[in-house]
Amino acid sequence: MDYKEVEQAAHRLAPVIHNVRVTRSHTFSDMSGCELYLKCENRQKTGSFKVRGAYNKLAKLKEEQGVSEVIASSAGNHAQGVAYASKCLGIHATIVMPKSTPIAKVQATAGYGAEVVLAGDCYDEAYAKAVSLQAESGAVFIHPFDDKDVIAGQGTIAYEILHDLPNVDVIVVPAGGGGLLSGIASYVKAINPRIQVVGVQAEGANAIVKSFQKKKHCTTKGVNTIADGIAVQNPGETTVALINEHVDQMVSVSDDEIASAILLLLEREKQVVEPSGAAPLAALLNHKLDCKGKRVVCVLSGGNIDVSFIHKVVEKGLLTRGRNMKFKTLMQDVPGALEQFCTVVRSQNANIIEVQYDRFQADLGLRETIIHMAVEVSGRAHGEALIKALNEAGYRSEVE
Amino acid sequence: MDYKEVEQAAHRLAPVIHNVRVTRSHTFSDMSGCELYLKCENRQKTGSFKVRGAYNKLAKLKEEQGVSEVIASSAGNHAQGVAYASKCLGIHATIVMPKSTPIAKVQATAGYGAEVVLAGDCYDEAYAKAVSLQAESGAVFIHPFDDKDVIAGQGTIAYEILHDLPNVDVIVVPAGGGGLLSGIASYVKAINPRIQVVGVQAEGANAIVKSFQKKKHCTTKGVNTIADGIAVQNPGETTVALINEHVDQMVSVSDDEIASAILLLLEREKQVVEPSGAAPLAALLNHKLDCKGKRVVCVLSGGNIDVSFIHKVVEKGLLTRGRNMKFKTLMQDVPGALEQFCTVVRSQNANIIEVQYDRFQADLGLRETIIHMAVEVSGRAHGEALIKALNEAGYRSEVE
Repeated sequence: MDYKEVEQAAHRLAPVIHNVRVTRSHTFSDMSGCELYLKCENRQKTGSFKVRGAYNKLAKLKEEQGVSEVIASSAGNHAQGVAYASKCLGIHATIVMPKSTPIAKVQATAGYGAEVVLAGDCYDEAYAKAVSLQAESGAVFIHPFDDKDVIAGQGTIAYEILHDLPNVDVIVVPAGGGGLLSGIASYVKAINPRIQVVGVQAEGANAIVKSFQKKKHCTTKGVNTIADGIAVQNPGETTVALINEHVDQMVSVSDDEIASAILLLLEREKQVVEPSGAAPLAALLNHKLDCKGKRVVCVLSGGNIDVSFIHKVVEKGLLTRGRNMKFKTLMQDVPGALEQFCTVVRSQNANIIEVQYDRFQADLGLRETIIHMAVEVSGRAHGEALIKALNEAGYRSEVE
Repeated sequence: MDYKEVEQAAHRLAPVIHNVRVTRSHTFSDMSGCELYLKCENRQKTGSFKVRGAYNKLAKLKEEQGVSEVIASSAGNHAQGVAYASKCLGIHATIVMPKSTPIAKVQATAGYGAEVVLAGDCYDEAYAKAVSLQAESGAVFIHPFDDKDVIAGQGTIAYEILHDLPNVDVIVVPAGGGGLLSGIASYVKAINPRIQVVGVQAEGANAIVKSFQKKKHCTTKGVNTIADGIAVQNPGETTVALINEHVDQMVSVSDDEIASAILLLLEREKQVVEPSGAAPLAALLNHKLDCKGKRVVCVLSGGNIDVSFIHKVVEKGLLTRGRNMKFKTLMQDVPGALEQFCTVVRSQNANIIEVQYDRFQADLGLRETIIHMAVEVSGRAHGEALIKALNEAGYRSEVE
């Protein structure tokens, strides 16, 4: 791909998108041992980088062919990107979304003026519907990644990074279909081949990792990851060819590593980032690539994460870090037993969040019960102090 | 206060703090009916604006008196601000924190090289300890708000806002002790008296609202709010005098309004903001002041919010919006009953997150039980469709 396509895209995009400058993260620099910078595409228009490729594609279609009608299928950020770009350009957009798409995403897409069609139980069925609608209407189908104008649009992120930080050593990029990674790598290598480009996939959706190892286009049988934005079985033909030519390294990260990175971004950078967007940071914090002392930019590709998902990530983090603790205790089944027990819990300043009685144990005496209790504590040491205090008061409490 | 003090502070601060530019929020502009901008001090060094006042105070003490040792008491952002400023200036800092301070805040403060002393069960006891330590060591005590150099430091936020958006109409600012509000108001009115400055307090800690109404310094008997950063019983004498002179309006917001604003900031702006920092947006979204069509800057004063608190805010939001729903159903207490029931729940694509059997009801037959179930659904309409489907299948399900 010609790097000038990316620069033309950058000029097209400038008036309609945010150019959020690369920012240094001291916290994550300390944690990773490199000089770490963030490119916050979670604060991009529509909440993700996808608007770049969509706008570039649509603007070219309008300029060169006078296209006035497009269609796309997506349950995610591509839908919002196409819808927003269409609105800016005065193009009519139809977006086919699976019926199970969260209502917030449907509303966001419709809110940009796109016509939303709910069809099918999964992405493939929505895609089939889009193809049949396209045949009727003659609208142009906008592919989410395997399209050179879309790729050039995503590559504008590299154009901005090189402007903000020309002496960058490594750029770390999430990869699903490969549009973002191939666009960034193609541009970077044309401008400065010294700069390393590393792609990150989820372990449960690693078709590009395999394609990179085998030096040919590969697919996976299924996908299994929390990172819905990069959960792609069949990456692009064009994107994989560009990646195999220009990318220096591909790595993968587990869902646990991603979830932990999301939580750290919330806590330390005050940023909401979606799972695919947190994958590059997860790779760095878990030392999947060697970056010691180097200047590294992580592309946080999007921030469209559902509230109930944030809830689960935080819940898991509280347990993992020992901030929430569950323990069981054998108690006398008599009046006053719980009060006495709670007196000890109170003395340790732990906050009770759940109590459950359990008498379904064959070896319990008739005047005994087991009590399961969940508490909030300030950390693992506080939790251990509570268990110790309970044992000293004569209870046999065990962490569950 | 002389506005030049603020400009001198701005020059002192420039090399050590972030100047995060004012950014437009389209979402919140639409929701509030004004042209809304955010000043994101949640992304400031140490996660809050407090570093501004602390650094200005310490830098002046060092320049003018050669001070090499300071002491402060705080459970929150002032602690981190003083610790960070001390590190920058090579001054020794002792910070007295209540024993109940979350471990993360203790670690952050110690991480900047400050000597942390844990003392007392509440802020007042920590303060008393700091006073006695100060008497021994002769270190200079750094007040969190009632100090003109601290006030001038906080005022630098106004200096930056006027640079980014000289035609602003209204600046909305949280207020607890009053340092931030008095600093901003004093500077703004000196430079452009046309610009309105509005202070926001929590309903459960409204000493400045009362002071403003009665035109004299007032205190409250206690404080009761989730907004710990502005939960102040006794605001400053100096700050209240400046506020009564320069501020145009004082309003207050409820804890529910604050929690809802925090959740919206997470979802729509991808920003983590602490309760006190979300108070100005809460005031605007709940129409506590008349800003229709005006250019308004909300000062998001900090982002240091504990993970377990985010968890509670999100949990509450999921319930309020009908994303999580709890309902009870009378069921036969026979083999297969739950399976049949779950078949209906599955047909509606709801995700079960809790099941509880309840047989402690006097009017239950021997082969009956009540089942309490909590589910995740996509919203209120989805929840209602589930209840309807259950009733059509012969169950009597009631939302709890």
